[in-house]
Amino acid sequence: MNMNIKELGEFGFIERIAPQFAPFIKEGTTGIGDDCAIIPFGKENLLVTTDLLVEDIHFLKSGITPFNLGYKSLAVNVSDIAGMGGYPTATFLSVAIPPWADVEFLDEFMRGYRELSGRYNLPLLGGDTTKSPDKFVVNVCVLGTSEPKNIKERSGAKVGQYVCVTGNLGSSACGLQLILERERQLEQECNSEDNEYYNSLILAHNKPEPRVEFGQLLGACSGVGAMMDISDGVASDIKHILKASGVGVVLDLDALPISLDMRECAAKNGWSAVNLAAGGGEDYELLFTIDKEDFNKFAEYGFTVIGEITDKSGELVWCRAGNVVKEGVSGFVHF
Amino acid sequence: MNMNIKELGEFGFIERIAPQFAPFIKEGTTGIGDDCAIIPFGKENLLVTTDLLVEDIHFLKSGITPFNLGYKSLAVNVSDIAGMGGYPTATFLSVAIPPWADVEFLDEFMRGYRELSGRYNLPLLGGDTTKSPDKFVVNVCVLGTSEPKNIKERSGAKVGQYVCVTGNLGSSACGLQLILERERQLEQECNSEDNEYYNSLILAHNKPEPRVEFGQLLGACSGVGAMMDISDGVASDIKHILKASGVGVVLDLDALPISLDMRECAAKNGWSAVNLAAGGGEDYELLFTIDKEDFNKFAEYGFTVIGEITDKSGELVWCRAGNVVKEGVSGFVHF
Repeated sequence: MNMNIKELGEFGFIERIAPQFAPFIKEGTTGIGDDCAIIPFGKENLLVTTDLLVEDIHFLKSGITPFNLGYKSLAVNVSDIAGMGGYPTATFLSVAIPPWADVEFLDEFMRGYRELSGRYNLPLLGGDTTKSPDKFVVNVCVLGTSEPKNIKERSGAKVGQYVCVTGNLGSSACGLQLILERERQLEQECNSEDNEYYNSLILAHNKPEPRVEFGQLLGACSGVGAMMDISDGVASDIKHILKASGVGVVLDLDALPISLDMRECAAKNGWSAVNLAAGGGEDYELLFTIDKEDFNKFAEYGFTVIGEITDKSGELVWCRAGNVVKEGVSGFVHF
Repeated sequence: MNMNIKELGEFGFIERIAPQFAPFIKEGTTGIGDDCAIIPFGKENLLVTTDLLVEDIHFLKSGITPFNLGYKSLAVNVSDIAGMGGYPTATFLSVAIPPWADVEFLDEFMRGYRELSGRYNLPLLGGDTTKSPDKFVVNVCVLGTSEPKNIKERSGAKVGQYVCVTGNLGSSACGLQLILERERQLEQECNSEDNEYYNSLILAHNKPEPRVEFGQLLGACSGVGAMMDISDGVASDIKHILKASGVGVVLDLDALPISLDMRECAAKNGWSAVNLAAGGGEDYELLFTIDKEDFNKFAEYGFTVIGEITDKSGELVWCRAGNVVKEGVSGFVHF
């Protein structure tokens, strides 16, 4: 009788909850199902997002510096605002503090949180501070705004549009592998001043950069259809766009942008760089669709076309060198 | 070197953080330091509050039904909106789910969360769902609105005003004592249909009722000065009003409103009903100051005058039968 939450899954749980609250949602408001909630407020829209990070689930305390943990806790939320074309305006921080976390740890955590806050003049307007029996737990809630016409939802993809990403893919997932497998040694190197290529990969995982400026640029372009930030990996996240937009997609494995550092690290460790790029999570780059004729407007930013939207609703096809990849998508999601 | 967070304290930690973000706060916005943040948005104010509940810190899973836990998680946030004279408009829910929490538990939790949501037509517009290694963790963020003129901050107390509370005090603290000391037996009784007086006390703790309607009424009254919800107990919470308003107070221990159930239960167990009422937390009633001539406007609601604001800035004096209570306040705070 007692179903495990694992069987139901996160999205199963959300789909179970959402309809219960649907009658309370006012017209014009968008709730569960996109990067942020969208609440009309005068001439602007209020964007709201929240993310919970739990020790030993989202991070190991020995695998990330407290500074980067503070930075990342805010970054993953700001990234959700960026994914809709919005601009962050205020933050709320809840922390549950276990006995092992001393004031030095918390000061460093806050210093990282403040570094990213400072970039966007983001005030910390409230939160909650409490004890925790053992694990450090962080919940951040970020408010943002956008002119309604600039908001890009997951439902905006149109047949024939390019599918594009900002930046490189898979560096964060590769960095996580490094952290997990050679945690202590590598964290030391990461903290040192040497220029090991590992650093860029571990930093991609521990100190991701939300693409607020790109989100603003793309939000202001009418040729951009759907947009979201990449948190679970392209192979998984693109499905949300397909579902919300009622379209299909062909994606090209060979087109996935991968940094030289990541290729080198993957080769050295016998990992598939392409699988990390397609299935790895936490890139926090933007995934968007755009009219072909508008793509060149952004030539200077080095965005990458990784595929094309099709009319085959719900169908996700991966190609490589012009051929359909037979083994399917699951190979990229779980690695 | 490594200071413990306990030495610093919650408010010490907050005072350490707040100034770092002060430069980012726009004029007209109120951040850390009241029940909610206040963000001007057109003709209205956006109110935002967030609370984190951690298993074994804020609740024992054997001490509260999942239904009541869901209800309470939302109630303590809605109470913060009520404490400013606002009305709740949307909620965001983050849960970290440990292996022991099955779908039946989560369904019951959500049923409780939804019961209170339904009372205010409160949409659940987003959140986060994640695994937890062991403890159930809940973070709720609630948005609310209010006309700017109806918002009551902690800084509004004026010399000569009555200090008042809605409802009874200490029932929640008494209920918590019952839960802690005779947990299993009493939780059974609480779930049964009998009319043991324990029920009202345990329910006061496990299923508190946020005073939104009273908050609205008091918010609309220009004679009301400061207002807040009682979460840490009157003896502790009144200090926030004194500090923010630059005033003092004389409070009358004999005037504290205490339910008959609570008096009976305290007597039976050898607890001090007055100490529970003065120092016990989680009442979630409203604490407010009001011009004397306006108090009678609310006669039908049974609010209680418990003291009077003085010009002795920061001074908190407890009286009993007209005499100053010598042993001071700390006796009431820690019981």
